[in-house]
Amino acid sequence: MLKPSLVKELKVIVGPANLSTLPEELVVYSYDATQREALPWAVARPASSGEISEIILLANRERFPVVPRGAGTGMSGGSVPIRGGVVLSLERMNSILEIDEKDFIAVAEPGVITGDLQREVESRGLFYPPDPASHKFCTLGGNVAECAGGLRAVKYGVTKDYVLGLEVVLPTGEIINTCARTVKSVAGYDLTKLMVGSEGTLGVATKIIVKLLPLPEHVRTLAAFFNDVQCAAAAASDIMAQGILPRALELIDEAALRAVENYLKKDLSLGAGAMLLVEVDGSVETTAREADRVAEIMVHAGAVRIQRAESAAERDQLWNARRAISPALYTIKPKKLNEDIVVPRSKIADILREINGIAKKHELLIVNFGHAGDGNIHTNIMIDEADFPKAEAAAREIFAATLRLGGSITGEHGIGLSKAAYLPMEAGPGSIAAMRRIKQALDPNNILNPGKIFVNAV
Amino acid sequence: MLKPSLVKELKVIVGPANLSTLPEELVVYSYDATQREALPWAVARPASSGEISEIILLANRERFPVVPRGAGTGMSGGSVPIRGGVVLSLERMNSILEIDEKDFIAVAEPGVITGDLQREVESRGLFYPPDPASHKFCTLGGNVAECAGGLRAVKYGVTKDYVLGLEVVLPTGEIINTCARTVKSVAGYDLTKLMVGSEGTLGVATKIIVKLLPLPEHVRTLAAFFNDVQCAAAAASDIMAQGILPRALELIDEAALRAVENYLKKDLSLGAGAMLLVEVDGSVETTAREADRVAEIMVHAGAVRIQRAESAAERDQLWNARRAISPALYTIKPKKLNEDIVVPRSKIADILREINGIAKKHELLIVNFGHAGDGNIHTNIMIDEADFPKAEAAAREIFAATLRLGGSITGEHGIGLSKAAYLPMEAGPGSIAAMRRIKQALDPNNILNPGKIFVNAV
Repeated sequence: MLKPSLVKELKVIVGPANLSTLPEELVVYSYDATQREALPWAVARPASSGEISEIILLANRERFPVVPRGAGTGMSGGSVPIRGGVVLSLERMNSILEIDEKDFIAVAEPGVITGDLQREVESRGLFYPPDPASHKFCTLGGNVAECAGGLRAVKYGVTKDYVLGLEVVLPTGEIINTCARTVKSVAGYDLTKLMVGSEGTLGVATKIIVKLLPLPEHVRTLAAFFNDVQCAAAAASDIMAQGILPRALELIDEAALRAVENYLKKDLSLGAGAMLLVEVDGSVETTAREADRVAEIMVHAGAVRIQRAESAAERDQLWNARRAISPALYTIKPKKLNEDIVVPRSKIADILREINGIAKKHELLIVNFGHAGDGNIHTNIMIDEADFPKAEAAAREIFAATLRLGGSITGEHGIGLSKAAYLPMEAGPGSIAAMRRIKQALDPNNILNPGKIFVNAV
Repeated sequence: MLKPSLVKELKVIVGPANLSTLPEELVVYSYDATQREALPWAVARPASSGEISEIILLANRERFPVVPRGAGTGMSGGSVPIRGGVVLSLERMNSILEIDEKDFIAVAEPGVITGDLQREVESRGLFYPPDPASHKFCTLGGNVAECAGGLRAVKYGVTKDYVLGLEVVLPTGEIINTCARTVKSVAGYDLTKLMVGSEGTLGVATKIIVKLLPLPEHVRTLAAFFNDVQCAAAAASDIMAQGILPRALELIDEAALRAVENYLKKDLSLGAGAMLLVEVDGSVETTAREADRVAEIMVHAGAVRIQRAESAAERDQLWNARRAISPALYTIKPKKLNEDIVVPRSKIADILREINGIAKKHELLIVNFGHAGDGNIHTNIMIDEADFPKAEAAAREIFAATLRLGGSITGEHGIGLSKAAYLPMEAGPGSIAAMRRIKQALDPNNILNPGKIFVNAV
């Protein structure tokens, strides 16, 4: 709880209309896509970095937590105010400040919806590649906090690869600019890349400078259906091994296919056991040639049917199926543990085999889909409330298998709350100690988003 | 000076043959490409991360500086042991440990020559894009320490974009692994990217995991000659603005052209006032089309002659001219200040105009060449010993102009010694304070490479 005098001070900073303390308002800011919840003591909706700095200075003086929040689409509890305090909602800072068509740069505030930025730059022949599945709702600031990946990461990389510079409010209140507007700079430590993916624990990004690319001239999309997921995984690996770099290479297993087909009431696969969705981009000729080559490789790897999207509508239909997986899964079970493990590409078939064994052992339904191109598989343990303990045991076994194969327990969701207990499985004590020393150095009073990333975070 | 007992302890760690204290041996490790010099007290040539950890633990106990060193090709004094101490030469740790053709990953020790790694992966149809001009001599470890850029950064990015993970010995002696072998991972703070470009002040990389790409199928190279450098700069900007992303886009001004022609005793330019060297890669068809389009754009921007490399020999000839600039410049004057400023691409013509004015004002010859594609210009103030003070004044004015145009004072060389005095022109006090807090948190005794990056670094 905040003292009334503090509520008053916060109201002076952001204006009375932009500070909420009523339970019915607070509840809107209490959860994210993990379905974890915790009520904050207050929600502030600042309009500028100056206001954020004032709030953070107050928090240091009075020692209350400050939890930055975008749209609440996070997958690891990063924006859930587990220790109360003030949620800093960046919803009012939602302007695209600049699109520089000569230098291929955009400058935006953190509350801008990622899909809005994409559309805006595409209308000018430019391209912002990071493409989280939630791009219609998620914010650029949230993407920066979590280093969001997405469907095109296999070719184009993740959010970090596009952030050139940031204006950041540090946990001690200073407002800094981390970089120039250039694609290169090595002036001192790379605070930009340290901030991206730090899950709101090291700073609040208040202005985001991103690199843009020329919009690819042409895109071709094709789907392939396989009898089983092992064949599909092998085909994905083969495509990459042949030196083809698709802009998307998505794998969908049988359970996910059935869930989507039921959800959309459409028979997409004619009963197949797995699907690969592949998209190549580039010039008209290159994409034609690459699409043919991809089709050949997939047939050779055992595809029973290839479907090429011949129109924008057909392309949308294929992608809508992919994007419908997450909601569709809730028609199977009321809850899921969604783990975004990542393995070296050539190990996808191995990890799927391991997951299958773990599912059988625990008598759980585990649904797999995701970014086969970069080895990032979304493995969803589907449960009723009562299954939670055995689901957690299964998750731990999946993480252990992932790490044995040279992988990481999170490719794009972050540690947050959901994976804090598992971080020590991946990062050794020396690495975690170094991370904690950095946190302590930049946030001595542990103001910003406490309780995340580290277990028993002080 | 090291106490004899410490020399003895160091000899036990690395073996007597791998510890030098004789002045004639030390002098070899005293300088880098900036021609700055300082003698270390000893040079240790460890063979493993374990030995490095032991040396660093000893340094913390006895409080002597440890200065990591690759091949000494650095451009900012990063490896010069300005405060004495022990130079940690990584020359013996020079094995390519693994090239994984399925997962497009290489694992190498820090002493591997970058060009050797490039050649080795290319022989297997793979590609390691970072390409510093010194690739025949520089080491991967040095590239990691400085976040080396190079000729292909315009399309492919810099060293940081390829480093997936590191084994690092921290300044307190712990050996950590910063990442998985996957192209994605967001498990905790990004220690990998914090280490890359930290100039040997935050850790010693002892194993380097890099991402590889498929080797592009085809490359086409062309040169264009212009009457003046402003036209050439405008042409470079036009190429990018048309949505073409060449793998290299190098600008060479008149003074650099004349120096190279004298040095190579060849008339390349037939008296032209500037040259652009452009290289596109991709499929045979795409490169043919892009090369034609590039030629058109350059003619439209005022190119007086286009020369296409029709054979590997012709391509080598063009690149040899570009790579000969640095040595050629020493035929003009005995010394140079080589500043690697970077501006937004569209501002190249502006910065060249500013530099021209500054050169006239100080009556200095300033030679410009470099990576027009990413705005990274190597501006070389050519001097005799006596000119040093006015060259420093000119450099400061060039940095001020660069920052006014939205640029950075260093695109790829790093701060080191050479630019420490200028870092506060770019990074505000809040940013520098945050960097110093990180340094203090990870290296409380200021063991690793002290005196670099920060002025009066404690």
